[in-house]
Order: sequence, then structure tokens, then C-alpha cells
Amino acid sequence: MRIAELSRSSGVPVPTIKYYMREGLVPPGELTNRNQAQYTDEHLRRLRLARALIEVGGLPVATAKRALAALDAAGNVRDALGKAQYAATTVRPHTVDDEAWGKAQAAVSGLLAGRDWAIKADGPALLNLTETVAALHRLGQDDLLAMLDHYADAAEALARAELPEIARRTTTDGMAEAVVLWTVLGDALLAALRRLAQENESAKVFNATTEPTT
Amino acid sequence: MRIAELSRSSGVPVPTIKYYMREGLVPPGELTNRNQAQYTDEHLRRLRLARALIEVGGLPVATAKRALAALDAAGNVRDALGKAQYAATTVRPHTVDDEAWGKAQAAVSGLLAGRDWAIKADGPALLNLTETVAALHRLGQDDLLAMLDHYADAAEALARAELPEIARRTTTDGMAEAVVLWTVLGDALLAALRRLAQENESAKVFNATTEPTT
Repeated sequence: MRIAELSRSSGVPVPTIKYYMREGLVPPGELTNRNQAQYTDEHLRRLRLARALIEVGGLPVATAKRALAALDAAGNVRDALGKAQYAATTVRPHTVDDEAWGKAQAAVSGLLAGRDWAIKADGPALLNLTETVAALHRLGQDDLLAMLDHYADAAEALARAELPEIARRTTTDGMAEAVVLWTVLGDALLAALRRLAQENESAKVFNATTEPTT
Repeated sequence: MRIAELSRSSGVPVPTIKYYMREGLVPPGELTNRNQAQYTDEHLRRLRLARALIEVGGLPVATAKRALAALDAAGNVRDALGKAQYAATTVRPHTVDDEAWGKAQAAVSGLLAGRDWAIKADGPALLNLTETVAALHRLGQDDLLAMLDHYADAAEALARAELPEIARRTTTDGMAEAVVLWTVLGDALLAALRRLAQENESAKVFNATTEPTT
């Protein structure tokens, strides 16, 4: 197909497609003459992947590029999945080594030990978790931190349901793709569903009798 | 305090503080003479809030500004919480009205009806959920979509734990702040914890015997 059809089928504007190609997220088409290139269903699929990670999952372009590159380099399954997941995770910058950071490190270590989770020491998710807990300490949201175990329960239940499903795929490539997509778009699903569940619960919890006297 | 101390205490560089002030996320200090302004603990707190939403929660500056503005306009509790939550949600652009979009709308309606969730028809989270489900349809990830109920279970369990905690705060302002922070930083907590739980489960599920023959 030509680029115009690639754009129609994917819903991605032509300039954005060209940008993704320049950035290496989508491979170039095959030149059929000086000014025209042809694209295959594989281009369409890759374009939809890139678009889903960036527009729906909210990944920065550089992170999406890294995640897509990890898909191309699958090897041993467990390593491939780990690499794909790490590549799909944006690391938030670490800023202040203050008291809150020390407390957060202790809280996160305690959580992992209590659950007997085997986690590599230098992964991006561990840093992000510690950074988020530290930010909540700094903001005095200790009532939310008291619920960290509820969050870990939710995460564990999802991982236990998902990993066996991912393992049912027949190729390492398919599994690595599932890890990237389920991780990134799963975040988006959960973010949306949490807001809807909150809206529903809010209607139950807040009625005339619970209005505070501000 | 002077701006240098505000920067040291918050870990936010002075140019970023000035940028947040220009954008209206943090109020200006009180001018003590032509070139000097004084800042209070309230400025420090607001700066930490803005920073947490943007750097840790990953909100775009415009969304963080809207969320902070919603905090300043609290009224009736339930309305205030709804407004704060909507303001803290970035809406992903809707693109294609294709077959996947129609299927996604039907799946989301079915999910809400099956759970008896009372949700306003035009909220940002509903649009984001439908867009995410449509993207997964387009990418052929029907095995993930089959697990949508697990995601809804996780979201519901968290909302049921959180809303009564939020209701224990004594002012509408405190509740609205909790809604914004818990929504945005809760996403970050959950994203990090899901990755750690996956890493732990992956070690259990993938061992030598389950390597596929790629």
C-alpha cells in the first residue's frame, strides 16, 4: 500500500508517520521509484503498535522506540520479557536524598521482603516506586501510604492472572510483544477503571450526612 | 524564605520554579523590594504538589494546572471530588470511528452494566477506557481483553479501600487534594508495583521447561 492508505488504515496522519520513520519506530517502505514507497501489513502493524504505546499508553517517543527495539531482539524468554518490560518503563528523575527518600527505601524494602518478591536491585520500576513513595512522604499523605499493601495486592493479583496467559503464546516474539503492550496499555486500562470505580464509590460514600463543615 | 531556599527545600531548580509561576501552577511570592520576593511554607507545599503531579505522576503541565485550579475551587464535596478527578485526567485524542471503536463501546457498556457502576456519560476516564480497549482490538490482543474483569476487580477493590479513607479527612480541601494526589500518584504506585509483581511471577512461570521453540 501507499503512505496515504497506511495513514487511512491506521488513523495516523502522514506527517506523524514520516516522523516515526525518521525516529526509527517504523521501518521505511520499499522504494518503487524515486518518489514512491510501498508499505506492507507489517508496517501497518508496527505503526499501530507505536501509536498505541505513544498516544494511548502515554509513553514518550524515546521510551516507545526502546520498547519496540527490545521486541526485535528477543532471545531466552525470561530475559526477553525482562528487557521488554524494562525498556517500556520511563524512569522518573531522582532528585533529593532527603529523609523522605530514606524512609521510602526502607518502606519499599520491607514491602518486597514481606511478600517474598524476587526483584533485581537496579530496575526502573523499583526506582519509580521508591520515588513515588518518597513524594507521598514529602506531601504528608501517610494515609495513602498506609494502603500500599492494597496496591501491592492488586498488582500481584493481576500479575498472577496475566503471566500464565502470556506464557500460552507460542513464540518468544509474541510473548515479548504481550509484555510491552499489556504493561503499557494495562496501565491505561487500570488508570481509567480506577477513576470509574472511584466515581461509583464516591456516590455511595458521599451523601448529605457525610458533608464536612468547612 | 527566598527563592534559593525554596529551591533547596523542594529540590526543584530555580528556573523550573519560575516557569511554574509564569504558568500559574504556583502563586508568586510577596515582593519585599524591587528584586526580591519572599515565599512561605504554603508556596513550598504547592510547589511540591505541582512537582509530584508532573515529575512523579507524569501529568502534562496543562493538566497539572487544571488539577491544582480544581483544588482551589472546592464546594459541595461530591462535586468537588468529581471535578478534581476529571481535571487530573488527561484525555487521549480520539481518532478513528472504526469497527474496533464500536466493539470497544459495546464492551465498556457491558462491563459498566454488569457491575452496576453509575458513571456520567461524558467523563474523560470513560473515553480513555474505550480508546484503550479499541487500541487493543486493533492490535489483536483479545487475550488481554478477556482479562478486563480482573482489571475492573482490582480497580474496584482499591476504590472501596480508598474512598472511606478519603472521607475521614476533615475538610473538603483535604479530600479534594487526596483525590488528585491519590489518583495521579496511585497510578504511579500501581504501574511500578505491577512491573515488580510481573518480574516476580515471570521467574516462577518461565523456567527451562516452558521455553517455546522459536
